[in-house]
Amino acid sequence: MPNITVELLSGRTMDQRRDFVAAVTDAAVDILKARRESVRIVFWEIEKSDVANAGTLESDK
Amino acid sequence: MPNITVELLSGRTMDQRRDFVAAVTDAAVDILKARRESVRIVFWEIEKSDVANAGTLESDK
Amino acid sequence: MPNITVELLSGRTMDQRRDFVAAVTDAAVDILKARRESVRIVFWEIEKSDVANAGTLESDK
Amino acid sequence: MPNITVELLSGRTMDQRRDFVAAVTDAAVDILKARRESVRIVFWEIEKSDVANAGTLESDK
Amino acid sequence: MPNITVELLSGRTMDQRRDFVAAVTDAAVDILKARRESVRIVFWEIEKSDVANAGTLESDK
Amino acid sequence: MPNITVELLSGRTMDQRRDFVAAVTDAAVDILKARRESVRIVFWEIEKSDVANAGTLESDK
Repeated sequence: MPNITVELLSGRTMDQRRDFVAAVTDAAVDILKARRESVRIVFWEIEKSDVANAGTLESDK
Repeated sequence: MPNITVELLSGRTMDQRRDFVAAVTDAAVDILKARRESVRIVFWEIEKSDVANAGTLESDK
Repeated sequence: MPNITVELLSGRTMDQRRDFVAAVTDAAVDILKARRESVRIVFWEIEKSDVANAGTLESDK
Repeated sequence: MPNITVELLSGRTMDQRRDFVAAVTDAAVDILKARRESVRIVFWEIEKSDVANAGTLESDK
Repeated sequence: MPNITVELLSGRTMDQRRDFVAAVTDAAVDILKARRESVRIVFWEIEKSDVANAGTLESDK
Repeated sequence: MPNITVELLSGRTMDQRRDFVAAVTDAAVDILKARRESVRIVFWEIEKSDVANAGTLESDK
């Protein structure tokens, strides 16, 4: 714990993922006082056709 | 807000998605008094082999 | 199915919930061709201190 | 109800899924006193590149 | 992994929770070949006024 | 987007939350190239009696 879920549009590189999980894990350890080995992060990629804001699919914008 | 997640079986058309997000967004604005630009809807498609009811996978029914 | 999750700020009345689930269920039946008895909706209420946008907690705005 | 979500790494066979949903549904009925027809289980498969523990993606280990 | 979420109506005893997590963890180890120390289970309790089926809140039934 | 969910044990202060959302939002902007105003973070607090690891509730450890 914490168990962190990151819902994001597809298209990030593996290096972006690597750097992001490192930064978020550091923040959880430093700020939330989590144990490093307990920090879990999961990415859920979604497509623009899977998400709507203000009543319109992102793929239609 | 609201942030709405719709878990559904695959197979809907884009037009069904379009009409559904429009209707749900209208309901959020009219009934919940949400600001239209704050209504977010995400679809998560699942397959019949990913879901079980009453102890049996839907793909086995 | 669909299984719909509605994450929203606390403070809506029971009548707002009633009307909203009725409207969303109708939309699922009419547009997504779901069976009415299969439409499930769950509300998750959150407080302003539980959500941040653009790096600031809503309770600090 | 209960509505159970199982986030797991890809690679299980259909028979493993079948046996697992049967066992979990039995436990929900026997222990939680759920009605069998109300027990719903959904699998969300993730890849090793989608999950990090202790600041490192599982695919990098 | 697996990371299992159990959404259920409030009202179960601690002993029911204890027995349920033991049974589900055993099933994950025996059937899914998970490592016991990697099986994580989280309960999310909901109230009848938080869930609707077929367009009606459970608290109105 | 990204839409980030942080499931954590209760007991963090508001200042810890403030600093954590600031740090995670910065990481999303700098590393994932997200627009700052699109970064959303939600906290879900859980109690030790709501989570089990390795088959035992955390409140029993």
